[in-house]
Amino acid sequence: MSSYERVTAHFEDADSLREEGRRKMDWALQHMPICQSLREEFADEKPFDGETIGMAMHVEAKTAILVETLAIGGAEVAVTGCNPLSTHDDVSVALDAVDNVTSYAVRGVDDDDYYAAIESVIDHEPTITVDDGADMVFRIHQEHPELIDSIVGGAEETTTGVHRLRAMDEDGELQYPMFAVNDTPMKRLFDNVHGTGESALSAIAMTTNLSWAGKTVVVAGYGYCGKGVASKAAGQNANVVVCEVEPRKALEAHMEGYDVLPMAEAAAEGDVFITTTGNRDVITREHFEDMGDGAVLANAGHFDVEINLDDLDDLAVDRYEARDGVEAFEMDDGRRLNVLAEGRLVNLAAPVGLGHPVEVMDQSFGVQAVCVRELVENGDAYDAGVHDVPDELDKEVAEIKLAADGVEYDGLTDEQIEYMSSWQHGT
Amino acid sequence: MSSYERVTAHFEDADSLREEGRRKMDWALQHMPICQSLREEFADEKPFDGETIGMAMHVEAKTAILVETLAIGGAEVAVTGCNPLSTHDDVSVALDAVDNVTSYAVRGVDDDDYYAAIESVIDHEPTITVDDGADMVFRIHQEHPELIDSIVGGAEETTTGVHRLRAMDEDGELQYPMFAVNDTPMKRLFDNVHGTGESALSAIAMTTNLSWAGKTVVVAGYGYCGKGVASKAAGQNANVVVCEVEPRKALEAHMEGYDVLPMAEAAAEGDVFITTTGNRDVITREHFEDMGDGAVLANAGHFDVEINLDDLDDLAVDRYEARDGVEAFEMDDGRRLNVLAEGRLVNLAAPVGLGHPVEVMDQSFGVQAVCVRELVENGDAYDAGVHDVPDELDKEVAEIKLAADGVEYDGLTDEQIEYMSSWQHGT
Amino acid sequence: MSSYERVTAHFEDADSLREEGRRKMDWALQHMPICQSLREEFADEKPFDGETIGMAMHVEAKTAILVETLAIGGAEVAVTGCNPLSTHDDVSVALDAVDNVTSYAVRGVDDDDYYAAIESVIDHEPTITVDDGADMVFRIHQEHPELIDSIVGGAEETTTGVHRLRAMDEDGELQYPMFAVNDTPMKRLFDNVHGTGESALSAIAMTTNLSWAGKTVVVAGYGYCGKGVASKAAGQNANVVVCEVEPRKALEAHMEGYDVLPMAEAAAEGDVFITTTGNRDVITREHFEDMGDGAVLANAGHFDVEINLDDLDDLAVDRYEARDGVEAFEMDDGRRLNVLAEGRLVNLAAPVGLGHPVEVMDQSFGVQAVCVRELVENGDAYDAGVHDVPDELDKEVAEIKLAADGVEYDGLTDEQIEYMSSWQHGT
Amino acid sequence: MSSYERVTAHFEDADSLREEGRRKMDWALQHMPICQSLREEFADEKPFDGETIGMAMHVEAKTAILVETLAIGGAEVAVTGCNPLSTHDDVSVALDAVDNVTSYAVRGVDDDDYYAAIESVIDHEPTITVDDGADMVFRIHQEHPELIDSIVGGAEETTTGVHRLRAMDEDGELQYPMFAVNDTPMKRLFDNVHGTGESALSAIAMTTNLSWAGKTVVVAGYGYCGKGVASKAAGQNANVVVCEVEPRKALEAHMEGYDVLPMAEAAAEGDVFITTTGNRDVITREHFEDMGDGAVLANAGHFDVEINLDDLDDLAVDRYEARDGVEAFEMDDGRRLNVLAEGRLVNLAAPVGLGHPVEVMDQSFGVQAVCVRELVENGDAYDAGVHDVPDELDKEVAEIKLAADGVEYDGLTDEQIEYMSSWQHGT
Repeated sequence: MSSYERVTAHFEDADSLREEGRRKMDWALQHMPICQSLREEFADEKPFDGETIGMAMHVEAKTAILVETLAIGGAEVAVTGCNPLSTHDDVSVALDAVDNVTSYAVRGVDDDDYYAAIESVIDHEPTITVDDGADMVFRIHQEHPELIDSIVGGAEETTTGVHRLRAMDEDGELQYPMFAVNDTPMKRLFDNVHGTGESALSAIAMTTNLSWAGKTVVVAGYGYCGKGVASKAAGQNANVVVCEVEPRKALEAHMEGYDVLPMAEAAAEGDVFITTTGNRDVITREHFEDMGDGAVLANAGHFDVEINLDDLDDLAVDRYEARDGVEAFEMDDGRRLNVLAEGRLVNLAAPVGLGHPVEVMDQSFGVQAVCVRELVENGDAYDAGVHDVPDELDKEVAEIKLAADGVEYDGLTDEQIEYMSSWQHGT
Repeated sequence: MSSYERVTAHFEDADSLREEGRRKMDWALQHMPICQSLREEFADEKPFDGETIGMAMHVEAKTAILVETLAIGGAEVAVTGCNPLSTHDDVSVALDAVDNVTSYAVRGVDDDDYYAAIESVIDHEPTITVDDGADMVFRIHQEHPELIDSIVGGAEETTTGVHRLRAMDEDGELQYPMFAVNDTPMKRLFDNVHGTGESALSAIAMTTNLSWAGKTVVVAGYGYCGKGVASKAAGQNANVVVCEVEPRKALEAHMEGYDVLPMAEAAAEGDVFITTTGNRDVITREHFEDMGDGAVLANAGHFDVEINLDDLDDLAVDRYEARDGVEAFEMDDGRRLNVLAEGRLVNLAAPVGLGHPVEVMDQSFGVQAVCVRELVENGDAYDAGVHDVPDELDKEVAEIKLAADGVEYDGLTDEQIEYMSSWQHGT
Repeated sequence: MSSYERVTAHFEDADSLREEGRRKMDWALQHMPICQSLREEFADEKPFDGETIGMAMHVEAKTAILVETLAIGGAEVAVTGCNPLSTHDDVSVALDAVDNVTSYAVRGVDDDDYYAAIESVIDHEPTITVDDGADMVFRIHQEHPELIDSIVGGAEETTTGVHRLRAMDEDGELQYPMFAVNDTPMKRLFDNVHGTGESALSAIAMTTNLSWAGKTVVVAGYGYCGKGVASKAAGQNANVVVCEVEPRKALEAHMEGYDVLPMAEAAAEGDVFITTTGNRDVITREHFEDMGDGAVLANAGHFDVEINLDDLDDLAVDRYEARDGVEAFEMDDGRRLNVLAEGRLVNLAAPVGLGHPVEVMDQSFGVQAVCVRELVENGDAYDAGVHDVPDELDKEVAEIKLAADGVEYDGLTDEQIEYMSSWQHGT
Repeated sequence: MSSYERVTAHFEDADSLREEGRRKMDWALQHMPICQSLREEFADEKPFDGETIGMAMHVEAKTAILVETLAIGGAEVAVTGCNPLSTHDDVSVALDAVDNVTSYAVRGVDDDDYYAAIESVIDHEPTITVDDGADMVFRIHQEHPELIDSIVGGAEETTTGVHRLRAMDEDGELQYPMFAVNDTPMKRLFDNVHGTGESALSAIAMTTNLSWAGKTVVVAGYGYCGKGVASKAAGQNANVVVCEVEPRKALEAHMEGYDVLPMAEAAAEGDVFITTTGNRDVITREHFEDMGDGAVLANAGHFDVEINLDDLDDLAVDRYEARDGVEAFEMDDGRRLNVLAEGRLVNLAAPVGLGHPVEVMDQSFGVQAVCVRELVENGDAYDAGVHDVPDELDKEVAEIKLAADGVEYDGLTDEQIEYMSSWQHGT
């Protein structure tokens, strides 16, 4: 059974599904000027001729534009999802219809099928891998070490994935070069701060129909995602409380003007709780016990481990769907705690979830695309292990974006360059 | 055919529809502490016994709680929609099932049926009217003047409706007292600023999947709604441009730090245009001609007259649905201008539209409810014409809300009251 | 002894004093485009020929430009201070040297001399009065009722002054028309919000050398001044707490995202306290007892009654000047509470105090100037009592300011004017 | 002549000068909880016994607390200024009176005396150097290489100084270890963002008496200082324009919502220009030619090379002091361009300049103090060259600050630490 058949087997009308997916992709492309610019370059130069790219990403319209952009550059691309709930089937079908692309992503698959789809991608024997969460690279190392020799390298999209890869690297187990796309200024500042910040809040607002103004919003974690969520929530007139474990980040939040509290104290204060730590058990039994009736809990971190739902289920006398994407847990004292999207990444997994905004992903995927080009062109220059994205690539994407947005900026004169690099200037 | 049958005639399973509507209403009620508090009071005191209330409002979950609250207070209530696209059928069915409530609202009806539904409400011979846009009160004056004698008074929810009523009043044509709920500090500041501000932006973000960060957002009108939209957009890192016609409002926006431009200049600058003026033809042919490819146009004013779609259609060589709730108009030079929700009130009429946030409507409907109580208790004290909501009612609702949110505040000492009211104090 | 001699008697070099004052006035004029524009008009038209204007205002550079502007328009002007600490002697001397202007203001005079200077102004037998705090109008009513018949009217600058005048008016004691310049949108929004907001914070920062970032700033009063202080403090990354007595204002602050607390609770939380209420005894003994070591207290209201210094002195075991403009009150437990500018209006009375920013006063004084012109041209049209500034005057000043700042804005088409004034438009 | 005599020779009353300086220091200490805490530790442990510390810093009250703190820890300290205009003579005298401290700083010295004072410090044969701008370390390398052997290391406070040291290091000319205090998260975020941001704006406001609301403020450079200035100016309702040369920083500013323009275009737009680049010739002839009448120019970078005053002087037909700290340059077309503090670091060199806020310097100097302690305790572990401040030291200071401000935060559980360090967790 072809991948196309596999994805569409249980749908009545694959054609309309494909058209719908294509329409979504066209909308995304209209608002992805960086990918537009790179497609023109890649269409001319075909930098990926002869390469096979294996990808495990959130299969929705924007990622699809990256996939298509790589295919336009000459690659054969096989792709599947990196989260069972984030796939848009219509986009998957539309993507599968693109020349040189095969998509195995299906929404709502169980664990077995999820890993089977990753295996299907690996069957294509990729020479380059592109991950969002490191599942693909991890699977290849564990189950298909024989493929590693022919792999030039890969790129990883998220904080969490880079975290896993660095741990592998420290253990000496990472066998090919991986670009930590997540760690670039581009990615961290724009994707994490603006992308997660805006889309998590929109998804929560549209899932709950609640207001931010006057709400106490507890943000767990003050990394790039947490900063974005905190700043954008304050920008909607929420009263923001930050929970942190690193003293300098806690101090940074304090100096920004936020209340900083341990979660044990924040629990009773908060109306909405948003986790962004990348860690587990950020909100647990002791916190649930102190929360007020109607509290809303959402996770904006990669994995669904931040809110301990087992603890919550233990405490609950009843659970029911209060609203699409909202499960209410009723305590024995009548309090209702409302968990969004089963504690999964709320901007993707909520029923209204669209993931990151288009333009933010355009920046992130622009970096992905030039990283893949770098691997093809200069892959030999990189040892096995996690690599920062070379500064020049990151800069190139910024320049493309500024040009596309019509933003001009200054250059340095020779005298200024000389001044910056000299130290013979006194008071 | 009963109203219930009427609404549900074309649905397969009215029971599941009603349950879904009830679930939505329960969620809203959970987050409407003011209405919760008033329901307890009204259940005890039955202030509306013997009254018939005719309403034309957006029939969705939050309004339904107001309707139910009035019924709990003893009224017979008949309700229909005030906008053909804003009715939620499930809520309409659930509402119709509430004791003493009849709902005639059906989503997507044509003009004839829209007015027929208003007539059906009027058939109940209301003694009190509650409007959102003044259609009910206007219809009664034009078509059913014989009912006016038995009408105690009414209340109007929106800027636009109050505007129409004041014009009627000035022409000497308004025949019974109407409370201008829109003009209260409660309503203007919280509903217009926070409610419209937040929900218009969320609806646009979720309809387009676009980002605010770095976007140039042109806000037409710097009244309460425009201020909310501008402030919340800036709080999402948009670069905000304000268009105004009143010099003091223009100056206020300028002093706030926004760019102020005529629309003729803003047209070429903007990525997203949001109209909040309450006036017609705010964006017209000359502006469409200057807009860039991919521009997004949305209306956050009551009527769909602010963006001139006739002009746009004249200019377009093609129109198509680019995305649910987004119609693309393609110009002959290839530019695509994207109109959201057919230029109707975007936070209600967009496919993802949920209207104002729950808590914001709770405040607004709290004022409505105490105004209706005031009409019943002291209606004789008010002449025909538009009346401001008495300060004490507005204050009462603020006090209920603060108590519900656990916010304490200061009182005045006798010495302070004396100081404030005396003028015998020199330097 | 002439007023000039009076002011300069105790100075060594009046010439250099006058030059310094003139230099200050020139700087102010450079940044007062509204007054520049009105001076050109008044120089041509001499609207004030034959009038005598008596003024009690803060005599510093910006007010001096208003005084001079009125004199350019043909008036004889006599002026004195409205606060013993706010006069700049150099400006007073420079002003006295202006044709047709006599200045009686001297910094640091005692109560007797303060009122003697007001008497000297009244000796000129003003036909128009301009006040900042209503001392002049109050004095005339109490001590010189015989002058009232020949007075056309007056204008009052501040909230507090208008408050006193309204109380007089309600008691039927106000005998000539007074324009409440304070109550115009121009004045309230720009002067109170931006002027007081910015200058109070700058004055506190420069008096203390302390930072706002991460500080808890308690703002007492959430009127226009309080809103400005709160918003600008938050804009410097302070964590803002608001204290209020009016439930709707308290709710507004809560919905804006601020913490709202009674002062009794805020006392222990705050690092800096800023009073803006216009009322007395806002911070008293019970609050001082709970404040932490190093707390800073400043008043941004008109009178020095908001912080109860008698209570504080009672509690203190020692008082000393901790820094220019800062008096430390040491408690018996070692805590030091630091009062700025003796609890007087901090942006004027602090040693570094410059009063409101130039451009903000330009707007306010522009309204003053057109109000005086209105009294001369149409004074008969106004009864004795407090009058709002006519809308058209206020608008005229906004238009002048926008033109000066190069800001263009939209006009209304005939169709739009017709639409706004009609009510024959349905859904 | 002793240093004390040297500093005080031209003052009438050195005692009152010393008392005034001491009073300033006491105020600073009251608001420097980190230094308070370290003083207690150092008084007990005397970590600096036997060391001689040579310092070239801005000699004002806050720095004096660092100097005194090091002396309390057992060091002999010799100190001079790092900028001829930033010394407070009263503080210099008070500092000189502290046990084991000699101060050579005098305000307003010429170049010869400036370097003579540095030589006087070097005469003490320091074993540790602490610099703000690298003048001391640079002088020692050029003129006193024989001292280098006995120097354990040093610490540098500013961006500019670190920049010079890195250039020396790259040229292989830096002969002992230097801690780049500037590059710590503590220093960069809090000192540069909050300190420079707040104090530059306060100094400009108090020097000019102008308002930020509605002003177009052009910020040159979007590094940490530029971000602070931009954010705080926007927080005062300025309309901010950013000029940058690095595309990623330009994009970051664009995504934040600011206008980004080349200086050649910004020149005509701006009302106030603030340079923060650390580079030379940021504003030059071509820009002056386009600026409007009344433009204000200030520098917030370390050296006075950012605004090209030679170009401005060439263009000017007249220069005069428009106000204390403001020099007006009059163009032949009548435009007046106003330069603050001679283009020197405005928050220090303006007549009202107080430098960074006390608490911000407390953090920075806390890092300085623990760096000096680290050099004494573990200096051997560091090679010659520029070193980042060890993470643990930076963290220690954050912990002290949070404790002092009463801010509690979360810890990690063992399970969480294990989770963060493991990679065996799949989807």
